[in-house]
Amino acid sequence: MKESIDGKALVYCEGAFNTPNGKTAHGLTRFTERYEVVGVLDAKYEGKDAGEVLDGKPNGIPIFKDFDTAVEALSQKKELPKYLVIGLAPDGGRLPMVAKDTIKKALKMGWNVDSGLHDFLTNDPVLTQLAAENNCRIRDVRKTPDRDQLHFFTGDIEKVDCLKLAVLGTDSALGKRTTAWLLVHGFRNAGLKAEMIGTGQTAWMQGAKYSMVMDSCINDFVSGEIEHAVVSAYRNENPDVIVIEGQGSLMNPAYPGGFEILAAGRPDYVVLQHAPKRLEYDGFPGYRLHSLAEQINAIETISGKKVIAITVNHENMEEDEILETCKQITLETKLPAFDVLKYGAEGLIDLLKEKIE
Amino acid sequence: MKESIDGKALVYCEGAFNTPNGKTAHGLTRFTERYEVVGVLDAKYEGKDAGEVLDGKPNGIPIFKDFDTAVEALSQKKELPKYLVIGLAPDGGRLPMVAKDTIKKALKMGWNVDSGLHDFLTNDPVLTQLAAENNCRIRDVRKTPDRDQLHFFTGDIEKVDCLKLAVLGTDSALGKRTTAWLLVHGFRNAGLKAEMIGTGQTAWMQGAKYSMVMDSCINDFVSGEIEHAVVSAYRNENPDVIVIEGQGSLMNPAYPGGFEILAAGRPDYVVLQHAPKRLEYDGFPGYRLHSLAEQINAIETISGKKVIAITVNHENMEEDEILETCKQITLETKLPAFDVLKYGAEGLIDLLKEKIE
Repeated sequence: MKESIDGKALVYCEGAFNTPNGKTAHGLTRFTERYEVVGVLDAKYEGKDAGEVLDGKPNGIPIFKDFDTAVEALSQKKELPKYLVIGLAPDGGRLPMVAKDTIKKALKMGWNVDSGLHDFLTNDPVLTQLAAENNCRIRDVRKTPDRDQLHFFTGDIEKVDCLKLAVLGTDSALGKRTTAWLLVHGFRNAGLKAEMIGTGQTAWMQGAKYSMVMDSCINDFVSGEIEHAVVSAYRNENPDVIVIEGQGSLMNPAYPGGFEILAAGRPDYVVLQHAPKRLEYDGFPGYRLHSLAEQINAIETISGKKVIAITVNHENMEEDEILETCKQITLETKLPAFDVLKYGAEGLIDLLKEKIE
Repeated sequence: MKESIDGKALVYCEGAFNTPNGKTAHGLTRFTERYEVVGVLDAKYEGKDAGEVLDGKPNGIPIFKDFDTAVEALSQKKELPKYLVIGLAPDGGRLPMVAKDTIKKALKMGWNVDSGLHDFLTNDPVLTQLAAENNCRIRDVRKTPDRDQLHFFTGDIEKVDCLKLAVLGTDSALGKRTTAWLLVHGFRNAGLKAEMIGTGQTAWMQGAKYSMVMDSCINDFVSGEIEHAVVSAYRNENPDVIVIEGQGSLMNPAYPGGFEILAAGRPDYVVLQHAPKRLEYDGFPGYRLHSLAEQINAIETISGKKVIAITVNHENMEEDEILETCKQITLETKLPAFDVLKYGAEGLIDLLKEKIE
């Protein structure tokens, strides 16, 4: 098994696992090449298997009630981590006291701490002091890079002639990143070279080698950073296919997302992630989601690129509704529809493989 | 005459006046409430009137060949400035030596220096030292504000019930900001309260009281900052109409712009600035501009809002072509078309006034 980049990690998700606030922990639970996840912290699900709770498929990652319990159990298994990863986005953005206490404990044990929060741990002098004293490091993944590290758009994207796909979504928080990874792994399983272009801090935490963090980027550099990631992946890896993670949704009530990915990443096709049972935009009660047809039209109007398939998020569905819903979508949109999380990505991969010249 | 915010200023534009790189100087030449512009520096046009060179309408702002000449002339007129404003965007982004020498001279005379460049003057220790020694200040307007000064989207935009207009464009650098100011002034001349929401550093330099600098903003906060500016203008000024400056263009080959303005600023109508004789996207040779019809469709598809009028940039037109071109546009789009820079904004203001309840 391939070595993870940073080694064993415990993921902090107290009060948030299996909720929208736990998105990062979910990503790390399902997949990460950056860490070897040996446990998740959330008292509500103590004793359970993280994969079982999340997707009904056990994956051997235990959920512990708190830091001390986890450390004791993991010591016994000789699986003590070197990393604590903050796997939740707390309501209101501020970390609660209990979280900070856990972080302090980890630092005192010489563990590194990685966080994707807006509320930078490195702004807390108590924490930075502990890190210094214990010879470990805090990484605030969402920290805006210095301007001189950032790239402007150059036009080199035109030289990238492998197949490029973008996984966009009809809303935020409905599985774009998960689908993107399933596609990348599906292509690799089919014997092709595939690279993921991460555009968020969770994808970075999952080990996307070529990534940028769109939210925290200086606006002027977003297009350039996307292009740079895609071009770097192309030049370094010579892949057959590049899959770009989408962010947000085009017609979000406040945060329009996906345009720079279309403009700077220049995907050949768009895979559009959709949650058919969702009625309103995540975080915007009262704002009805634009219909699938409207959203497909928006993507194609703005970018001139085709939506090639719909990938379905089955939230709020019974298991026996899923395939029927996919069929319904195909009837309405004339596009193939897949639930890749439930049924795997092979069908979609077969379709996409044909587009590789 | 109303006092300017910061007093007399000399605008540095060596080698760039009347070229696309001189955009900031052009804005300041035409209008600014922040400064009282007493001269422009550009050897090519020495001795000419800035307004005459730019728009064929003299405005009493002399163009000087260099700093020393300007200082001598302005001293004699007792119009010595306290500000040097960098009014150009140099090719490649780096300031040439001669520009830095001019800045040093200004600082040694105790003048403040304002710059909208990406290449921050405050990163140059020689300049910051001179500023400190001479008790004056350098402002890098494009510097990214600290995260804790920035605002997230709140939804308060829904409470803004005055008329809101956004001036978007079919390309960059074709007069959106100029048109926006003409509208604001036109409304005020008609006895209405109007506020400009600036979204770029030039608008800030022109004294837009409620503004943010989109390019240099952290991406996650762009929508929130736009909303905050609009809501602040509404709450503080109780205006009849708010005019939001657009940035870029929706279908730009690399830098899609305007989406956050639509989503977060929630204009009631869009005024679309267009240069009918322009064939390719500014800065993107080989990229044909999308047609006016496509661009109108894109705006209306994404936002659900109507484009209410086209404002025409007459670049590369003979004077007698302008009105004919406007008629042609109206025939094609069914929308009224105006050249507000040439003929004034009254006709468009009359149309828009009806939308004020």
